[in-house]
Amino acid sequence: MDTDPPLQLRVFNLNCWAIRYLSKLRQERIGLIGDTLSQEGFDLALLQEVWSERDYCELKQKLTVCYPYSHYFKSGVIGSGLCVFSRYPILDTFLYQYSLNGYPYMLQHGDWFCGKAVGLLVIKICGIIFHVYVTHLLAEYCRDKDVYLPHRVVQAWELAQFIQHTSKGADVVLVGGDLNMHPEDVGIRLLRGWTGLRDSFADTERFEGCEDGYTLVPANCFINKEELQPFPLGIRIDYVLYKGLSHFVVKCDSLMTTTGTAPGKSIPYSDHEAVIATLCVKPREEAKASSSSAVEPELVDVVNEARTEVRVGLHAAEHQRYSNGRMAILALLLLLLQAAMGLSSLVGWDSPQPFPKFSFSLLSLLATVVLLLSMVLYVFHTIEVKMLQGTEEQMRLALQDKLSSM
Amino acid sequence: MDTDPPLQLRVFNLNCWAIRYLSKLRQERIGLIGDTLSQEGFDLALLQEVWSERDYCELKQKLTVCYPYSHYFKSGVIGSGLCVFSRYPILDTFLYQYSLNGYPYMLQHGDWFCGKAVGLLVIKICGIIFHVYVTHLLAEYCRDKDVYLPHRVVQAWELAQFIQHTSKGADVVLVGGDLNMHPEDVGIRLLRGWTGLRDSFADTERFEGCEDGYTLVPANCFINKEELQPFPLGIRIDYVLYKGLSHFVVKCDSLMTTTGTAPGKSIPYSDHEAVIATLCVKPREEAKASSSSAVEPELVDVVNEARTEVRVGLHAAEHQRYSNGRMAILALLLLLLQAAMGLSSLVGWDSPQPFPKFSFSLLSLLATVVLLLSMVLYVFHTIEVKMLQGTEEQMRLALQDKLSSM
Repeated sequence: MDTDPPLQLRVFNLNCWAIRYLSKLRQERIGLIGDTLSQEGFDLALLQEVWSERDYCELKQKLTVCYPYSHYFKSGVIGSGLCVFSRYPILDTFLYQYSLNGYPYMLQHGDWFCGKAVGLLVIKICGIIFHVYVTHLLAEYCRDKDVYLPHRVVQAWELAQFIQHTSKGADVVLVGGDLNMHPEDVGIRLLRGWTGLRDSFADTERFEGCEDGYTLVPANCFINKEELQPFPLGIRIDYVLYKGLSHFVVKCDSLMTTTGTAPGKSIPYSDHEAVIATLCVKPREEAKASSSSAVEPELVDVVNEARTEVRVGLHAAEHQRYSNGRMAILALLLLLLQAAMGLSSLVGWDSPQPFPKFSFSLLSLLATVVLLLSMVLYVFHTIEVKMLQGTEEQMRLALQDKLSSM
Repeated sequence: MDTDPPLQLRVFNLNCWAIRYLSKLRQERIGLIGDTLSQEGFDLALLQEVWSERDYCELKQKLTVCYPYSHYFKSGVIGSGLCVFSRYPILDTFLYQYSLNGYPYMLQHGDWFCGKAVGLLVIKICGIIFHVYVTHLLAEYCRDKDVYLPHRVVQAWELAQFIQHTSKGADVVLVGGDLNMHPEDVGIRLLRGWTGLRDSFADTERFEGCEDGYTLVPANCFINKEELQPFPLGIRIDYVLYKGLSHFVVKCDSLMTTTGTAPGKSIPYSDHEAVIATLCVKPREEAKASSSSAVEPELVDVVNEARTEVRVGLHAAEHQRYSNGRMAILALLLLLLQAAMGLSSLVGWDSPQPFPKFSFSLLSLLATVVLLLSMVLYVFHTIEVKMLQGTEEQMRLALQDKLSSM
């Protein structure tokens, strides 16, 4: 490969849905993903939801010839699920964990335990420095009443800020991942508007795959059809985004998605469709201005829209914190009352114990558990409030600065 | 101020020890700090341990004329305590929270609740882009048996990595803060070795203040003399570090510390001494090589030393996780046993209840509390294990790459 004819780069992105004991046909699918990556020889494979390090090691072993470089990002209780396989040397890595990521008590969703994050890899290909970001944002469980929207908007903002602050030394920025946002959602508009990243689906010259580039489609046998009911044709939430910095231009020559099953197989790779982008990187003919400070009015609107969502989240978090604080105080009062009653009956002031001892103890058990849980949750929601306030303020400051530099 | 005669910058750094209800003479000292900053007219004031936003607002109000730009970084339960006052516009801010920061159950230390972090501010002064980092690392409570050392080493590594990844667009990097490390400690050698930052105390042409630049000295009336017993003259844990990137050279013209009391006053600003550096920034005469890839053997040793500390922490964290897991299982077994006994006595198999009902209930209360706490701690230590493993691996990878590029 030479840089004089433009550099062509084939990038594979997939949310692998590899949850041990829960995901259907996990082992077969991991085997299938490994075989395909090995046969196709992409330049980069960005994977999400590889929750088990054993699965990563299995893939690594299989792909060691074709992709000699790889990295797994560790975070959270389970792991970030993010890993990358590369044909080119990985020079450096860095992980940024999102400050908000759902609630630990929402065990049925489990996002909090995953330590959702964005991983940065610095990769040099034919002398060009690529900053590759792989990420997976907080899931959307109910679009109509999405309690996680403020957290996801904060994640999108942190992702945008992280990319902006860490990509100054890059020639090309490449982002792949399951963003859990539809293309028109505020988070993705914020991310794209703030960073200037281009969407491979919107820009590609040739496209092949599911209608409108959907990556969750009803044709996929692992998909929960009910969840897709409001969108009978599917949704697009997995992306390959990119931009060239000062000296390079990036274009998307072609884009593909799988269409419910892996090519030539009877089962899909995952419940998501894979996104395969062929990018073309070439030197920019005329030097680009170091940074275009012109702010489009739409960007101002998007940031303000995002701030509104953050404020909605802040309001909810403050309410939760208040409820938990009140609950903790009530439980404490109950415990104190019980202690006083217990003491007075011990001393003998109030000899005929008014409650049966068993119910009395059961009540104190309950009060202790409630007190402990409410205290932990009070602390948790206080952190949430601080982070939402901080983000809102950061957005305001960043916007102010952009506007003043117009 | 003009750039042709070199730019002179006066930087004030102080850990303000402003904990509401706990720190002595807090309000007087905040007033004093405000007065001094106002009179002296520094270019930048980097403050730590301003825990209460009210104190920040008081300072902000007082300093609005002299320092029209300021920022407070929000994080954790209490706040990061980090804030900055600047004579020059703050163009952007970004916060990185350290992934490990002590233990929530060490209430007497409280570091976990502070959400220790590093704040980045982008500031343009006379056309020169400054990346200013303000931070406060995990405290050292007992030097002989420092259980927090692995966490502090991880923080130092994350700080170094954060600076390296976010400073590519800067002309000058400036770091101020309470690093809670002595100059010869592994964390500070790692930070300086990895980033190439220079220590203003080691480099200054003129120095005035406490012997050896100490910032915790026995002459300070707020200092706990017992804690300083092993170091009767004092210790240096507050730093102003800097480096010029490709086009600029930075030197430290003079450095000062306060000496136990604020100049001309009877009380100190804080339990720490303030560090005041006068830096001189001028264009580099000959362009610097983009990055010196020569790795000094000492750096390899330092990274390996840091890895050893991280591994020690990993071992301890794994042990803690195991203990908590075992405790949770025991508590669960006890609860199950009690449930079985309760049921059997209800059904009537075992009519003469062998234990008094009250002790029986008390025991189940205890078992429930132990189960809940051990589960939460198990999750907490699992996250700790993951982060320590991840850091160790990242250090290995980064070193490998440095060595292979030699």
